[in-house]
Amino acid sequence: MKILLTILDGLGDRPVKEFGGLTPLEKAKTPNLNKLAKNGITGLMDTIGRGIRPGSDTAHLSILGFPPEKYYTGRGLFEVLGIGMNPRKGDVCFRANLATVDKSGKIIDRRAGRIGDTSPYAKKLNGITINGIKFLVQPGTAHRMGIIARGKGLCGDVADNDPHIVGKKVLAVKPAKNTRQAKFTAKVMNKFLAKAKEIVSKNPENVRRKKSGKLPANYVLMRGAAFVPKLESFEKKFGLRAGCIAGGGLYKGVARFLGMDLINVRGATGTPATNVRAKFKEAKKALKKYDFIFLHVKGTDTLGEDGNCRGKMKFIEKDDLAIGELKGIKNTVIAVTGDHSTPCSLKAHSGDPLPVLINGPGIRVDAVKEFGERACASGGLQRINGGDLVPELINLAGKAVLYGD
Amino acid sequence: MKILLTILDGLGDRPVKEFGGLTPLEKAKTPNLNKLAKNGITGLMDTIGRGIRPGSDTAHLSILGFPPEKYYTGRGLFEVLGIGMNPRKGDVCFRANLATVDKSGKIIDRRAGRIGDTSPYAKKLNGITINGIKFLVQPGTAHRMGIIARGKGLCGDVADNDPHIVGKKVLAVKPAKNTRQAKFTAKVMNKFLAKAKEIVSKNPENVRRKKSGKLPANYVLMRGAAFVPKLESFEKKFGLRAGCIAGGGLYKGVARFLGMDLINVRGATGTPATNVRAKFKEAKKALKKYDFIFLHVKGTDTLGEDGNCRGKMKFIEKDDLAIGELKGIKNTVIAVTGDHSTPCSLKAHSGDPLPVLINGPGIRVDAVKEFGERACASGGLQRINGGDLVPELINLAGKAVLYGD
Repeated sequence: MKILLTILDGLGDRPVKEFGGLTPLEKAKTPNLNKLAKNGITGLMDTIGRGIRPGSDTAHLSILGFPPEKYYTGRGLFEVLGIGMNPRKGDVCFRANLATVDKSGKIIDRRAGRIGDTSPYAKKLNGITINGIKFLVQPGTAHRMGIIARGKGLCGDVADNDPHIVGKKVLAVKPAKNTRQAKFTAKVMNKFLAKAKEIVSKNPENVRRKKSGKLPANYVLMRGAAFVPKLESFEKKFGLRAGCIAGGGLYKGVARFLGMDLINVRGATGTPATNVRAKFKEAKKALKKYDFIFLHVKGTDTLGEDGNCRGKMKFIEKDDLAIGELKGIKNTVIAVTGDHSTPCSLKAHSGDPLPVLINGPGIRVDAVKEFGERACASGGLQRINGGDLVPELINLAGKAVLYGD
Repeated sequence: MKILLTILDGLGDRPVKEFGGLTPLEKAKTPNLNKLAKNGITGLMDTIGRGIRPGSDTAHLSILGFPPEKYYTGRGLFEVLGIGMNPRKGDVCFRANLATVDKSGKIIDRRAGRIGDTSPYAKKLNGITINGIKFLVQPGTAHRMGIIARGKGLCGDVADNDPHIVGKKVLAVKPAKNTRQAKFTAKVMNKFLAKAKEIVSKNPENVRRKKSGKLPANYVLMRGAAFVPKLESFEKKFGLRAGCIAGGGLYKGVARFLGMDLINVRGATGTPATNVRAKFKEAKKALKKYDFIFLHVKGTDTLGEDGNCRGKMKFIEKDDLAIGELKGIKNTVIAVTGDHSTPCSLKAHSGDPLPVLINGPGIRVDAVKEFGERACASGGLQRINGGDLVPELINLAGKAVLYGD
């Protein structure tokens, strides 16, 4: 028996007036999801806890069975993982932007005129060593970079140098705790950022940018310091060989953090234009090799954050069609849910619970016939916490280890 | 968006024969509550945990988001808060009675002939200092007083001097743990109680009492020692400016403990004769100033404890009428529930779950059309723990802080 866990990011929603009080999922025509629900067991899921409004990182850690209160140290870690860097235990990771500041240090643009490629800059920062700490720097998407500080005596208890507001002066990195490690990390980061300013300002790329009327990239803003804890793999924890199919960097990052293999799918972009069908096709194939596939689809969340309820509804219909690719799949427990709600009315994540369906051979089919936020409230799974989903799936797949004798 | 949490104390009940097996809430005509339920989301709530029979103090701490296992140190603290005293971290608080004992120390009356006013006695006890410990004493309702012991080296691990049974001898205060602090606290309390006996016995009030054939107040019985832990405010924890509308002292005490403002309402007595309508009127007004209003109504519990099922049913109808005052309220998440069940058949608190309804803009309305113990069991909130209620309300009000990124 194999397991396929599909996360439609930001799937949950609230009633939409123009849909007559239905949610985008309830309004969408989803014959394939409904069929899975009808022949499966359903319920409502609180990803992290009742009323807790999850971030994408914490939500995925929780759903994949790794409690965020234990494993979440900050966003920086998932950022560097998402762009393919290899953090090790004891590193401190950061998200970074190239920015434009004036002579006094005031921020003119936090994204250096939305610079599209940071590679020429990252290249020259990568490998700098200060006080025995080595800095690894790699380009991220658009104006972003990932930074890893590696060496002895570091910790993640330092504040951002990014004031997050245009017109304000950049900050010195301050220790967030009164410890030797925090003071040392802050000191080293300040030295690195001073050096980085010097290096990026001089980059010949800036000359080209100025010529074409663009803002120069003359500063590095960093945030989200995250200490790398001891890494524990999904395979070691659950005894399942796992692969991940995702477009978005963060989700790949979470999967890599848990030691899952990344399975590349052409056309999987992490946007509403993604090729969902190709993802499910690939998942069906990959299940021959893997025990567990984590399939992530981002578009639902993006459209929810845009407040585009019609777009979200249509994208759910596109997902439903793609799920049709699973037709004929055998010996597989299929679960479909989201990582959090992203109600179009809020244009943001919320703590509203998610509908969840589990379909597979021999399970206790309940009376729910549709996949929707309210229909699933009367399902046989009742209310489930995100952290219990993987154990449930493993049990339904007949792979749970006996506790006791 | 604002939040109004209404607690109808002891609301939950069990089937009543003379109501054809309905509960007082199910039997009562409650058009306003039903309307809120019909256009809202409902469920069942375990205040502290499944089958746990909550006290009024622990129930309220839990529902207001402060787990009693962490914040409840004893009843004494809420007693002194309820009568307007100002305990500080490190104090030990007690509930106390004026009592009548004979020469041998045997209790003749635990309430000194139901003495109506302890002020003349409390006044003379207030301010006594023994071994560097200062005693603050204030009158409570009827035969009751609140006592705060303040100074270094105290703790709450001491037993009552009150044997709780008429005819028994008063007890010496004993340390409940084998610690220096417990032994010291017991020693100081015994000295204080000996001195208190001397002082109250001599009170000229006793001469007047004897003349009119009443029992003299010649002893202080104390119980419910509670160490004052570090105080954390509701506002600090949840980021909401909060006010409390309540008649009963204990509920005001809990609110003050959590740093809520007390909003006085004329006619709010904490009895079944209370002016519930005035409370809801005031709540509507107060929501302009506050983010969160905790509105407490005591009568349901009192009538349940009297075993008066018809009275409880009628009082619920009175509450329902009063809730009509909220008509036209906007941008507010309204929750109605109880703190515990007080089944008329038991005349006591029970661990049966409470119906809960939440009504507000944009939420996922469920199919439940009535507010009742059994109707709400099929609601969209499903089963909720008391400690999760405030986070749920904050989420539904769109005020939840993102956990993660």
